[in-house]
Amino acid sequence: MELPIEGNELDEETNKRGAAEVMSPMFSPTRIKFPKHIHTDVDDKLQALADSILNRSQIGNEQVSRQVTAPFEVPEYPIEEKENRSYFERQFSHSTSSQTLTSPVERSRPSLLDEDVTPQEVKAELDEEIDLVPSFQKISISGEDFSGVPLKDLELASKSLVKALMIREKYMALSHQHFPRVTARFLKSLADREEFSKVKNSYSVGDKKSIEEFGPVSIKDHPIHPPLKHGDPFSIEMDESVGCSFKFVNGVVQVFQNEEALEKNEPIEWPYPDLDTYLDDQNLMYAFISDGPLKSFCYRRLSFLSYKFQLHGLLNEMKESASQKEVPHRDFYNIRKVDTHVHASSCMNQKHLLRFIKKKMKTSEDEVVCKDRNGKTLTLAEVFKSLNLTTYDLNVDMLDVHADRNTFHRFDKFNAKYNPIGESRLREIFIKTDNYINGKYFGHVIKEVMSDLEESKYQNAEYRLSIYGRSRDEWDKLAKWAVEHRVHSENVRWLVQIPRLYDVYHSNKLVKNFQEILENVFLPLFEATNNPKSHPELHAFLQYVTGFDSVDDESKSEHIVFDKDTPLPQDWKTEENPPYSFYLFYMYANITVLNMFRSGRGFSTFKFRPHCGEAGNVTHLLAGFMFAESIAHGLVLRKVPVLQYLFYLSQIGIAMSPLSNNSLFLNYHRNPLPEYFARGLNISLSTDDPLQFHFTKEPLMEEYSIAAQVWKLSTCDMCEISRNSVLQSGFPHLVKQHWLVS
Amino acid sequence: MELPIEGNELDEETNKRGAAEVMSPMFSPTRIKFPKHIHTDVDDKLQALADSILNRSQIGNEQVSRQVTAPFEVPEYPIEEKENRSYFERQFSHSTSSQTLTSPVERSRPSLLDEDVTPQEVKAELDEEIDLVPSFQKISISGEDFSGVPLKDLELASKSLVKALMIREKYMALSHQHFPRVTARFLKSLADREEFSKVKNSYSVGDKKSIEEFGPVSIKDHPIHPPLKHGDPFSIEMDESVGCSFKFVNGVVQVFQNEEALEKNEPIEWPYPDLDTYLDDQNLMYAFISDGPLKSFCYRRLSFLSYKFQLHGLLNEMKESASQKEVPHRDFYNIRKVDTHVHASSCMNQKHLLRFIKKKMKTSEDEVVCKDRNGKTLTLAEVFKSLNLTTYDLNVDMLDVHADRNTFHRFDKFNAKYNPIGESRLREIFIKTDNYINGKYFGHVIKEVMSDLEESKYQNAEYRLSIYGRSRDEWDKLAKWAVEHRVHSENVRWLVQIPRLYDVYHSNKLVKNFQEILENVFLPLFEATNNPKSHPELHAFLQYVTGFDSVDDESKSEHIVFDKDTPLPQDWKTEENPPYSFYLFYMYANITVLNMFRSGRGFSTFKFRPHCGEAGNVTHLLAGFMFAESIAHGLVLRKVPVLQYLFYLSQIGIAMSPLSNNSLFLNYHRNPLPEYFARGLNISLSTDDPLQFHFTKEPLMEEYSIAAQVWKLSTCDMCEISRNSVLQSGFPHLVKQHWLVS
Repeated sequence: MELPIEGNELDEETNKRGAAEVMSPMFSPTRIKFPKHIHTDVDDKLQALADSILNRSQIGNEQVSRQVTAPFEVPEYPIEEKENRSYFERQFSHSTSSQTLTSPVERSRPSLLDEDVTPQEVKAELDEEIDLVPSFQKISISGEDFSGVPLKDLELASKSLVKALMIREKYMALSHQHFPRVTARFLKSLADREEFSKVKNSYSVGDKKSIEEFGPVSIKDHPIHPPLKHGDPFSIEMDESVGCSFKFVNGVVQVFQNEEALEKNEPIEWPYPDLDTYLDDQNLMYAFISDGPLKSFCYRRLSFLSYKFQLHGLLNEMKESASQKEVPHRDFYNIRKVDTHVHASSCMNQKHLLRFIKKKMKTSEDEVVCKDRNGKTLTLAEVFKSLNLTTYDLNVDMLDVHADRNTFHRFDKFNAKYNPIGESRLREIFIKTDNYINGKYFGHVIKEVMSDLEESKYQNAEYRLSIYGRSRDEWDKLAKWAVEHRVHSENVRWLVQIPRLYDVYHSNKLVKNFQEILENVFLPLFEATNNPKSHPELHAFLQYVTGFDSVDDESKSEHIVFDKDTPLPQDWKTEENPPYSFYLFYMYANITVLNMFRSGRGFSTFKFRPHCGEAGNVTHLLAGFMFAESIAHGLVLRKVPVLQYLFYLSQIGIAMSPLSNNSLFLNYHRNPLPEYFARGLNISLSTDDPLQFHFTKEPLMEEYSIAAQVWKLSTCDMCEISRNSVLQSGFPHLVKQHWLVS
Repeated sequence: MELPIEGNELDEETNKRGAAEVMSPMFSPTRIKFPKHIHTDVDDKLQALADSILNRSQIGNEQVSRQVTAPFEVPEYPIEEKENRSYFERQFSHSTSSQTLTSPVERSRPSLLDEDVTPQEVKAELDEEIDLVPSFQKISISGEDFSGVPLKDLELASKSLVKALMIREKYMALSHQHFPRVTARFLKSLADREEFSKVKNSYSVGDKKSIEEFGPVSIKDHPIHPPLKHGDPFSIEMDESVGCSFKFVNGVVQVFQNEEALEKNEPIEWPYPDLDTYLDDQNLMYAFISDGPLKSFCYRRLSFLSYKFQLHGLLNEMKESASQKEVPHRDFYNIRKVDTHVHASSCMNQKHLLRFIKKKMKTSEDEVVCKDRNGKTLTLAEVFKSLNLTTYDLNVDMLDVHADRNTFHRFDKFNAKYNPIGESRLREIFIKTDNYINGKYFGHVIKEVMSDLEESKYQNAEYRLSIYGRSRDEWDKLAKWAVEHRVHSENVRWLVQIPRLYDVYHSNKLVKNFQEILENVFLPLFEATNNPKSHPELHAFLQYVTGFDSVDDESKSEHIVFDKDTPLPQDWKTEENPPYSFYLFYMYANITVLNMFRSGRGFSTFKFRPHCGEAGNVTHLLAGFMFAESIAHGLVLRKVPVLQYLFYLSQIGIAMSPLSNNSLFLNYHRNPLPEYFARGLNISLSTDDPLQFHFTKEPLMEEYSIAAQVWKLSTCDMCEISRNSVLQSGFPHLVKQHWLVS
């Protein structure tokens, strides 16, 4: 039996030509035939279209379409028709002036290079920007409430976030570190409201002078290359002593005008960082990151950012690429990139180190290079003999410095890789600054790497050198090494890494308490700042040291919580290593005082850019959020949406090294970099340890290449990451301006 | 109520101290407490162990263990204890002599470099090999039936596989292409059995002479570098004509002793490939690959191979790495690698091409380089003017040759990338052999790439040049280009790629039927072989052409099945393009006859190494299995277990280009390369199109680097892949011997 159906739910066409053959509802007892195809005019058109598609892929009666599907030099029929395409693309970017550079497309992210621009300039700049940006497809979201959370939750979440941002702003301002202008302006607009006034009022350093000293620079007519520095890089004016004295009070240096003030215990009235305030702030932050509603709010916002970016990409890819093409002369290859995180002792690749060792064996085999355990001196040739090796034999596998499958999740194994041939002796001779030959070879090999960088012209790097804090003369020795061997390049700046090794020094009876490490690390710097002539080489070297790093295996378990009951540095005498936050707080506090002192004297200040969130507890990232201008790694952020969102809002730089992570902690295709990038976090690419990870002669390009290929980054994406790397770096502000704006 | 339990299922220790607190079975109505921890002596030991682990990661009272967890130069306490480790590793590889090279570890894969070794030598070699191989952990599988399939299935499967292998052996033998010795020996042992005799007897060419002409070479004392060739690479003895005549019979050339024989239609009695036999074989192969039980048998075998390899890796990684270290001087950087699949027109990277174009604009802007559509000649400067471009403006983005997100699954878009700035004119001028300036610039840029290869010393490449088959003089023009511009390097060999473009030529009225293409491609070669003096440049050029490639977009749909009803080449006059197998059969057939002719004259022969299985129908791979010595891509093999297993058994070379696939057909981390490798397929790494895909100056190293990082290949794996690439390549046998054995 066939059901006659009233046609009101069918479209007319179908209805007209025998509607009986339509599926019945499931419960109908009758079986109805599968609806037959009914021919319409539309079908004809579709058929014609289908035919033409088949034709195009099958039969070559249209030259052009067929031609473009050939994986070889295409035959020489006129394909000038292709010009249509480029014409189309040019149309797209018609409104783009050729002024924009590097990242012609402002993907609506907060600008970082903004310290010295007046509000008037900002407005002018913004007006101009509107001209520069091609007419993108834009996504507008309307409706009453698009946050997707109940209004009350939204209010609470916003308050928490604002408070957290104010906390960071405070710590950054105190320590002369960067906080983005857009966010600062927004916070300022809230500062007068009662509920925030308390947080806001608790700091008002306003030591803006040193920053404004640059003066507003007209950036319009600058060439991309900053003026070259001539003469001896280490010659510097030695200012007179200002006669200050210093004393550690509970682990933080206090500065006294003179001996007299010291005796009276009347330090200069600076806002010395204060442990109790920090602990309060820390507790507040703890509460924020574990607050359920805030977590889900931040997660939603992050997802929102990421979807928006994907949409933007889909809609505007062509336009971005077109306006990128419009920039004359510049492309990804000749814009500046900074390798924001490399350890000096592994900045050369394995092949390079091997070649260098072989070269030294050829040219200086009779040079005395070290002492053995009995105090007998050994020449390079004798060292090789003792290792039972000839130069010819030595190969990269024997060098055994490359990370391999066995290093995954084995930081200890990985670190053993720093010893070529598993021999500490070769490491001692070739990649140390402080050895029998005073780091001569290490200086040479770094200079070779530097000259490669200079040759590449657009690649720069920030190398980490170690200060351990075991003795008071480490700084002077390091500075002497750099000055003596002229280890300097305009493409390179230094960061100093302080390993978190109290427990090792203590068990070796090198230090009695934690305080001593702080003294060894910081007092020489205060002395050099007070009286440059007392440490002339150090003073000269410090021009090129742009910040501090804090390093060690973060994945080790920590048993101690840093709270009010934790012993102070002078009382920390146990065998155990203090926790991560403890290290960070005391480093931050002393850097802050040092920066106040140095900026007062008109000297350079230091940034704090620790390793943070490579592994281990999320509290590391909390400390990073409060103390660090930027961090290295930040992998763990993927597990903490609140912090991740705060990192976005305050545009904290994250120097990521996916190849390093791939060997140690996280497989390449699981790395959060592309996600962070889509969400607008301020990330850059860095190599970490070319000696251990990279294969080609251009480690940084290799890092970019792999990221671009695996994650399908566009040229525009890569330029944005390069730009981030410049902004995160410690190169002088003026130099960055040249690099980024032309 | 507590259940008293008889203690026979509990260990004594537990029983003794109150066994009552043990979980009851699920159905027991009573609730029993969670068993309490009972302290034992073992616990003490474990506790001590745990303490020591915690100590190691926490408290630094053991210097060494703490030290190795520091991500920086380790402080200078005595860490000579690390020597223990290297001692341990040396113990491992103690039995390894320093003879082995490149791949010191024979991972029990069939050897390919074996043509000219006598059985005695084989035995000697095998005996020696046992000495060379370190004592690996071995996996032995025992039990009666470990194939995991019913005996009947096993028998059937084996028969099918043997038949398939015999089919391939036949086609390889006929065409002077390689078939692995191990497999051949095994097949020989079966040949006498009745059921296989039919297949086996159907061929017996035995034209082994040309191969044995090399004579057994003592490979013991050879240095790794083959003797350099001096003098003009293109000077070659011009043999006299042998006066043969040629005629196409159903699309396959037949060779006649002389004009007279031609008139009598009495061709030389060679085993000319025969369409009917091929179609029969093809049908048999069709049946095999769709046979359910055979499919699952092959899939199981492949899984078995892959698990075995993983196990081998886990157990022997350390030993492999140790014996790799024992090889003096050699490492991954200084062993030979061949880029087995690169197109000449994209062999330079984008930065290189850009620099080259700019250089030419500087040095030769007044050179006339092309004619416009009206026949007016244009200088380089005029061309740039017509494009509205200055040299300074030009950047890599504008060049627009790099593959991007838009090329994925868009072969047509990808191919448009061959036109710099989307302008066919620049392509015409800079990357073509046959243009107004006779390919001068293209010759120059290729020579620059070649000189980079020579400088790297260990990198080699096989570039593809195009012959289209549109006219009879293409070969002579190409040879003239190479000879005139001296485009030659000892690091490079050529393959000639024939695009499958009949439909384009036909619709442009360049050819009337398919036969004409075959004539244009093959007759010049027969003529040059018959009488070198008639084509002197071609004869000289052919020394360096090692084989043929077949190229086009495989993903286009094919409507026509190649069977007995398919028109013969002379009758193929329709607009439609013939199917893939049709192209391959006629190329194979004519290459086969050509090789018979050339080997008879003592000239070099050609390999057939088409693009195959990049996309499209699995039948492409069937044709590849029968006709090709090796193939490029082979991605589709992952869907055809029977063929994949046959590719393993016959060790057919597969030149894979995961970066190219990543941009066109398959995301990087889904590429089957690591799986193929683990299963023992003979794969190599190649770049395909550095112009489109690569970023650094060393594209091949970049390709290896990414593969090594993403798939965590060991150095040993990478050396094995390099070795495969040498074996797959068309470099002379003697040269390969030098490269692989020292």
